[in-house]
Amino acid sequence: MSTRQTIALDAMGGDFGPDVVIPAAELARADLPGVHFAIFGDERRINPVLSRYPELCRVCTVHHTEKMIANDEKPSAAVRSGKDSSMRLAIEAVKNGDAGSVVSAGNTGALMAMSKLILKSLPGITRPAIASIFPTMRGKTLVLDLGANIACDAEILVQFAVLGSVYARVVMGIESPTVGILNVGSEDMKGHEQVRGAAAILSNVQFPGRYYGFVEGNDIAYGTVDVVVTDGFTGNVALKVAEGVAKMSSDYTKRALTSSPLAKLGALLAMPALKRLKKSLDPRFYNGGMFLGLDGVCIKSHGGMDEIGFANAIRVAAGLVENGFNRRVAYEIEQLMNQEAFISSVSAQAIS
Amino acid sequence: MSTRQTIALDAMGGDFGPDVVIPAAELARADLPGVHFAIFGDERRINPVLSRYPELCRVCTVHHTEKMIANDEKPSAAVRSGKDSSMRLAIEAVKNGDAGSVVSAGNTGALMAMSKLILKSLPGITRPAIASIFPTMRGKTLVLDLGANIACDAEILVQFAVLGSVYARVVMGIESPTVGILNVGSEDMKGHEQVRGAAAILSNVQFPGRYYGFVEGNDIAYGTVDVVVTDGFTGNVALKVAEGVAKMSSDYTKRALTSSPLAKLGALLAMPALKRLKKSLDPRFYNGGMFLGLDGVCIKSHGGMDEIGFANAIRVAAGLVENGFNRRVAYEIEQLMNQEAFISSVSAQAIS
Repeated sequence: MSTRQTIALDAMGGDFGPDVVIPAAELARADLPGVHFAIFGDERRINPVLSRYPELCRVCTVHHTEKMIANDEKPSAAVRSGKDSSMRLAIEAVKNGDAGSVVSAGNTGALMAMSKLILKSLPGITRPAIASIFPTMRGKTLVLDLGANIACDAEILVQFAVLGSVYARVVMGIESPTVGILNVGSEDMKGHEQVRGAAAILSNVQFPGRYYGFVEGNDIAYGTVDVVVTDGFTGNVALKVAEGVAKMSSDYTKRALTSSPLAKLGALLAMPALKRLKKSLDPRFYNGGMFLGLDGVCIKSHGGMDEIGFANAIRVAAGLVENGFNRRVAYEIEQLMNQEAFISSVSAQAIS
Repeated sequence: MSTRQTIALDAMGGDFGPDVVIPAAELARADLPGVHFAIFGDERRINPVLSRYPELCRVCTVHHTEKMIANDEKPSAAVRSGKDSSMRLAIEAVKNGDAGSVVSAGNTGALMAMSKLILKSLPGITRPAIASIFPTMRGKTLVLDLGANIACDAEILVQFAVLGSVYARVVMGIESPTVGILNVGSEDMKGHEQVRGAAAILSNVQFPGRYYGFVEGNDIAYGTVDVVVTDGFTGNVALKVAEGVAKMSSDYTKRALTSSPLAKLGALLAMPALKRLKKSLDPRFYNGGMFLGLDGVCIKSHGGMDEIGFANAIRVAAGLVENGFNRRVAYEIEQLMNQEAFISSVSAQAIS
């Protein structure tokens, strides 16, 4: 069996550790024939859960370690002292070729810092980004960066556009994905020099998507483009504002539908429809922050997710490996960097 | 009658011009005894609408001009060539003391550029900000800046904190408002130097609010603090992401509640409750982007608002004048700038 189909799991990350990670592996196993799991963590906590799933036992190996990264540990400290931690060993399994991907629900900053250090970036990628799928009024939109890089220059934003458009092509199956840069208005003169510089480059080069132009915050929910590119500060705020407003809307609706006996009766009749709605927006099916641009596949599951959510993150990891995402990115970045238009745009901006 | 109670209205701004502005003035008039309106714009379009409201005619003066600022005009062009435009004349009425405040639904960038040029900033305020009230799960939160300033250094963010906390005290009536700085995490080391610098200053000085710490995007909808401070780029994205997600949520709910005969019957029974919900989140009651920090009161109404929304923007203008908002800001900024802790924080940051 190819080790490409081995998925390394950090069993100790997230709020629930093996109690979520092991049942999630069992759920994902059913959809991923031929997959093998390399599970890293404390076998005293892993084995009792694992023993409930005899089928899963046959396709997994437990690598015992007592060390783990705490949720509140600083990334720099995790890198320094996280040797032999479940997170680090899982990442190293990818580096060593013992696994094709790694999934962790642990400390995001530590996971990013360690995977950058161990896996390194793909050739031509300055900095990896965190990407995630947002549900929209028209379908789905990939947004990146969601917090890996507080500040991003024009060239880095262009690299994100390549990462996003390759993802949209090979994983979402969109032939010619549209890419927008998040800004405070759609006119050319809007925004700071980083977004204007990235717009100038993307307007002039060939890359695996079509450059749409600037988009605004509401365009994410409207589904105006397939890929939204932004720096990690703005992207993180956008992600969390969206989560907050979605929660507020559903809370307000719930309050309204329980505010009177008549409303309660109405809600009861509409329950099947409301349940379908809830399912279609269920954050568990959008779980899996993808660290794109690393020379290896690393997926971050939300720390508070249950097994359904974590299983989805496992499927996302398997999908990136199966679709040869990284090979394609490496190819497209090389194509980009060889273009005269790219070289002259970037050097013109460096001078100005 | 004091000219403080005169409100200058740019009748030509927004998507509907006098067809919305005049009926809005009529609506607001009823709640604002003693108010006078100075209406600027094309009398051939204003007078036919005005003639329908004999009571309003008694408390208003029409100042005719045929010039107006187009919605797509660049702010710099509007400043250069906007002399005698309805927007500019309305702002000048405040400058000349003929009005206490100005309300316009016109081009936001032009309105900000012109009012900065004509009214100037309050002493001690480097740059005015656009502020607005967001509905939250706990009540209301003021967020600023929503787009006036793409980049803001630490000292400017601190000034926004003063503007926001004075607003929360004198207009929202909150004795000791909590102020948070929008960031990508709550820990001290998160974010860029501007937010960390502002946090360092606010932790050390006395100002009219209580510094809460960093807040994240979801804290806006959760209503974690009374005032959220951010730069205009991030704030504008946050505002528009929130608008987009709110629209998506309500659209999805509507679709669910019309997806089957049973759901439709349920929705019918729950209709009064759903209508109350819709009203409580009605953007028209949150209309009125406030330009805080100017030496004069200037309110921007959303361009697509109807008369109920524009009337609310008029009430916001009247409220700022009546509560002596600007006098209080000038006092508090002076208090801040005289503090040893402020002076040493700011100069330490300037050196580093």
